Amino acid sequence: MQLSEIIERQIAADSRRGFPTSFESDSDRHDQLMRDLVGLVGEVGEFADLLKKVGLVFSNPDYKGPSLADAEPQLRSELADVAIYLFRLSVILKGDLENDILKKMKTNDLRYQYLEK
Amino acid sequence: MQLSEIIERQIAADSRRGFPTSFESDSDRHDQLMRDLVGLVGEVGEFADLLKKVGLVFSNPDYKGPSLADAEPQLRSELADVAIYLFRLSVILKGDLENDILKKMKTNDLRYQYLEK
Amino acid sequence: MQLSEIIERQIAADSRRGFPTSFESDSDRHDQLMRDLVGLVGEVGEFADLLKKVGLVFSNPDYKGPSLADAEPQLRSELADVAIYLFRLSVILKGDLENDILKKMKTNDLRYQYLEK
Amino acid sequence: MQLSEIIERQIAADSRRGFPTSFESDSDRHDQLMRDLVGLVGEVGEFADLLKKVGLVFSNPDYKGPSLADAEPQLRSELADVAIYLFRLSVILKGDLENDILKKMKTNDLRYQYLEK
Repeated sequence: MQLSEIIERQIAADSRRGFPTSFESDSDRHDQLMRDLVGLVGEVGEFADLLKKVGLVFSNPDYKGPSLADAEPQLRSELADVAIYLFRLSVILKGDLENDILKKMKTNDLRYQYLEK
Repeated sequence: MQLSEIIERQIAADSRRGFPTSFESDSDRHDQLMRDLVGLVGEVGEFADLLKKVGLVFSNPDYKGPSLADAEPQLRSELADVAIYLFRLSVILKGDLENDILKKMKTNDLRYQYLEK
Repeated sequence: MQLSEIIERQIAADSRRGFPTSFESDSDRHDQLMRDLVGLVGEVGEFADLLKKVGLVFSNPDYKGPSLADAEPQLRSELADVAIYLFRLSVILKGDLENDILKKMKTNDLRYQYLEK
Repeated sequence: MQLSEIIERQIAADSRRGFPTSFESDSDRHDQLMRDLVGLVGEVGEFADLLKKVGLVFSNPDYKGPSLADAEPQLRSELADVAIYLFRLSVILKGDLENDILKKMKTNDLRYQYLEK
């Protein structure tokens, strides 16, 4: 599916639920960016917490935690949550995430050219 | 563009530069997830730092910082960086990000149904 | 209690549990910094997730979530977790957190002098 | 120095600069917690970004980045920034960070007893 279409679907669902993405003032817009950033940080944190537990099993054999295979489905689910907040942040910033990513990939092509083999 | 195609392009570029996404053991795979998570946290932090400065101008009129309009292009650029790390994490987890997002959106449809108007 | 004494207690407990803070090589030291950073990000994320839920009650009256008073004890508990990871990171970096904080406070005294009333 | 005294100094400096820590309503208090959390995330991100660069030198010999020894002073300085935001968040939550940390250390003593040797 087109990235832009996935984003549109998400924003339509958010609107129905009262999670706004358009604003009357830049101050209100800033406040919503803060809220969605905090939401994103929460999801990144859940991913980090689970990955930490997987790692403790490798480094500390007595530690009781999940294997990477056990944790995979939830780790992927947390990434999806991060993606959804990313979509919201991009839309609130009036961004075109697809275009912004492609532009950044071009910048990185130049920046990391010295690493190419 | 299809989300899956954007991800493929990014992973191809990473491979040329020596940033791996396939591994011999789960321990190596876990280590790379840690590295890419730390990379993602760095980009989220740059977004947060700039958004904080925009906010200080609203809450503390004497503070010297950028307006939201000034900061928008860089904020969007940081989101693109976050997206690229998200792609890498998803691929290292053998995930299909598009599918994982669509699945999560369905879960949220049920979870937040009570908020719909 | 002296900050340095609190840190010493924490590191002594970590040593007994097999969470190392001293290393044979800088590569091993770097790996442990990554692990503890990921731990810290997990705790920051738990704080963020709970704060987000408190905020949704303010911005979306239909949302079912805790009041700030309800959430306070757990929010404070998450901050304590963040502090513990901060102590570990500082010790692994051979830092003196008390001294590093006091130094930074002096730097900020100069940097933000223009905001003082 | 007593942890409580370091925190008092920081809050006194913040008050002089117009960074509030006491509020008329829980909604205002929540907003400030969001702002300081975003500040903390920015500092954690700067730490992560630098640590990532140190790590890329280990994993990708062609990558141009700092050694851990080079990066140490700045990494420690970022931790001090994180600590300062942590102090602010704790005070805004009317917490006693020293006490909250000691309480958490006791909880962990029980929780991780099975790892002790």
